[in-house]
Amino acid sequence: MKLSRVKGMRDFYPEQMFQRRWLEDLWRQVSLRNGFVEYDGPILEHLELLTAKSGQEIVEQLFSLTDRAGRDLAIRPEITPTLARMVNQRVESLAKPIRWFSIPRLCRTEQPQRGRLREFFQWNIDILGVDSAVADAECIFVAVDLLRAVGLKAEDVVVRISSRELLAAMLKEAGFSAEQVDTAYRLLDKQGKIAAEAFEAQLQQVLTDEKLREGLRRITSYRTLEEIMSQTGLSSQSRAAGERLAEVFSVLKTLGVADYCSFDIGIVRGLAYYTGMVFEIFDRAGKFRAMCGGGRFDDLLKALGGPSMPAVGFGVGDVILTEVLAEKGLLPETAKTSEFYIIDADASLFNKVLEVVARLRASGRGSEFSYKRTSLGKQLKAAAAAGARRCVIVGQETTDEGLVSIKDMASGKQERVLLEKFLSNPEQVFE
Amino acid sequence: MKLSRVKGMRDFYPEQMFQRRWLEDLWRQVSLRNGFVEYDGPILEHLELLTAKSGQEIVEQLFSLTDRAGRDLAIRPEITPTLARMVNQRVESLAKPIRWFSIPRLCRTEQPQRGRLREFFQWNIDILGVDSAVADAECIFVAVDLLRAVGLKAEDVVVRISSRELLAAMLKEAGFSAEQVDTAYRLLDKQGKIAAEAFEAQLQQVLTDEKLREGLRRITSYRTLEEIMSQTGLSSQSRAAGERLAEVFSVLKTLGVADYCSFDIGIVRGLAYYTGMVFEIFDRAGKFRAMCGGGRFDDLLKALGGPSMPAVGFGVGDVILTEVLAEKGLLPETAKTSEFYIIDADASLFNKVLEVVARLRASGRGSEFSYKRTSLGKQLKAAAAAGARRCVIVGQETTDEGLVSIKDMASGKQERVLLEKFLSNPEQVFE
Repeated sequence: MKLSRVKGMRDFYPEQMFQRRWLEDLWRQVSLRNGFVEYDGPILEHLELLTAKSGQEIVEQLFSLTDRAGRDLAIRPEITPTLARMVNQRVESLAKPIRWFSIPRLCRTEQPQRGRLREFFQWNIDILGVDSAVADAECIFVAVDLLRAVGLKAEDVVVRISSRELLAAMLKEAGFSAEQVDTAYRLLDKQGKIAAEAFEAQLQQVLTDEKLREGLRRITSYRTLEEIMSQTGLSSQSRAAGERLAEVFSVLKTLGVADYCSFDIGIVRGLAYYTGMVFEIFDRAGKFRAMCGGGRFDDLLKALGGPSMPAVGFGVGDVILTEVLAEKGLLPETAKTSEFYIIDADASLFNKVLEVVARLRASGRGSEFSYKRTSLGKQLKAAAAAGARRCVIVGQETTDEGLVSIKDMASGKQERVLLEKFLSNPEQVFE
Repeated sequence: MKLSRVKGMRDFYPEQMFQRRWLEDLWRQVSLRNGFVEYDGPILEHLELLTAKSGQEIVEQLFSLTDRAGRDLAIRPEITPTLARMVNQRVESLAKPIRWFSIPRLCRTEQPQRGRLREFFQWNIDILGVDSAVADAECIFVAVDLLRAVGLKAEDVVVRISSRELLAAMLKEAGFSAEQVDTAYRLLDKQGKIAAEAFEAQLQQVLTDEKLREGLRRITSYRTLEEIMSQTGLSSQSRAAGERLAEVFSVLKTLGVADYCSFDIGIVRGLAYYTGMVFEIFDRAGKFRAMCGGGRFDDLLKALGGPSMPAVGFGVGDVILTEVLAEKGLLPETAKTSEFYIIDADASLFNKVLEVVARLRASGRGSEFSYKRTSLGKQLKAAAAAGARRCVIVGQETTDEGLVSIKDMASGKQERVLLEKFLSNPEQVFE
């Protein structure tokens, strides 16, 4: 029998699940305090929607299936097509700007390797209906807000920011045709992921004109936006795009996150649908792939059958971020959840234990008990193993006088109180 | 282009997502206070695991696919096979009893209809490693704890409880073979879901022996467990099973949830793997299908390649429960999340707005602002529309004297405070 886990996917035993929930809760908290509201779609989408957004090459990356009615479906590999579909479906009635977040489960049939799994979770933030440098910068601020929340400092990670608009204008200036611009995007997206010699070899292969190669080398040699903007021969298109990006950096400074951010003309985000500012977040040591990627995609909603609507957003997967956090020692320890542990001094009093457990739980207090009727000492041991904060000991005095003993597990202190008084305010003991 | 939603699945726009999160948060809270820890598995499992648990008939209910390596996979239609697989994989190292919960996303290719969708979420509670009436009753208590938490009272809903063991023993006494017992399970599971005449017709068809039909009618005519137990001719097997079930009812009384519970010999839970106590939860008015089902399944882990391990648990889907809650008016209104809304008295002060927004958000306070530089009045209106609790107005005095005005949106009261003092404790104004 094939009873193993599916390749490239994860089981979340309680320890792993605790960490996943911790991260998801932080994603949610940060989203809400930044004024975003949550949405989600189905795990399956029509194949046509996914290819309409990302082209036929995405098909190889999909877990796809045909349902009984002959419809071609696939497990979503990203949430953006769903976002575009949902917004387009209700575009008239939705209040603008749309500020939505989501934490979808996604699948891709990639070859499993470090940082790449076939199933993962991804935090998505999107602002639709606003075309301004403020919204561009705000997206980056939200990503940095999360980095700070998990304890990643400006010396640990860096947000590398560029502009597709600026890069395209500069490539055009250097003599690139529209098709050659796409070739350059593909090349630049690989730079940094492959060795320098391999990159140079690919460059020779796909750009046969030495003048173009020279142009690309010159463009990628700029280290700051100021360097580019100080050139005299800059086309008006390049200048306008550069000024817009400079405005993004200016807002990032106002928002107090400039120390996390730096300009990097080499950030292009593959062949995707980006039209303006683009960014990726890396660990400064360069040990991991990007833990976050995003940018402006003003044409996507229209391409998927909707009206023209400016949009900017990003995604953060759980796999690489968790690896970075593990390496920095920033993942939380699994917390024991048990608050009270109810114990009987004698097996005949077990019903009283169940009563107290039921009343505590119903009032919202975590409480546990042993299924085995054993000695007081063994039950206290079980309570300690369960990580209980306090024990409630039910004895003969409970039936006779309505008294229970409360034992604080950390200090070892023990006090006798009226059961009803304890139940009315379980925290008041020892105060 | 096929850009619509997949049939039978749901989009969760922010209003629907708010309700889904509200329910999931309650499921989680109730699980934790009852001492359960969370787990999850992949959305895809090997087809063989799913059929090993539920037989070939489940295949028709599955979204299945073959991956590039030729593996037969399917989207999980339930989490129990995953639970069994995960426990079996680590059965030596896991501390017993295992008390786990999960809130999986599940898919089935059912014909979409009221209360049945092709994608849904299901709360699962399981106790493994304990064979006692206390664990049986505790499961039901946890389900009732949730019912109370969402506001469903004993007059609204009922937990119908029976025992597979008892029913099987009584059917055997009445002359049923093992195969005929399965036939009876199938029949009884349909009773209540189809009209009385249709049921009688099916009965005639599948049980040709009138003596067996008579036996089945007699067994299902019992209204209380006491009625059954007071019979003189009861076999020792039936008596033992009845006594165990009586113990479950006794513990339910001790746990204070007897008012939600009633005996119903007709509850069998289909042909599934249950071996002892079984239960389903219904609205008392009988308008909806069962919103919860569960029971004891002591043989499953062994059947899936593990050691013998007693187990009891239940599942609650989101679809019917949400329908019941909607009908009773118990679903929450969507809450606006915005806490503070930052406004500039003059467009030239916008940078100060961004600064205040960034500092509030970074300190965990929800805060928003308008992307458009408009009049103070229009920004106040936007703040009201966003549901902001308080506005922070940045004016010339902010640059000159470090003062901001805080406006409470409910009372209309307004106060001037030092910005730094406000930021150090945003709640202190008006106190």
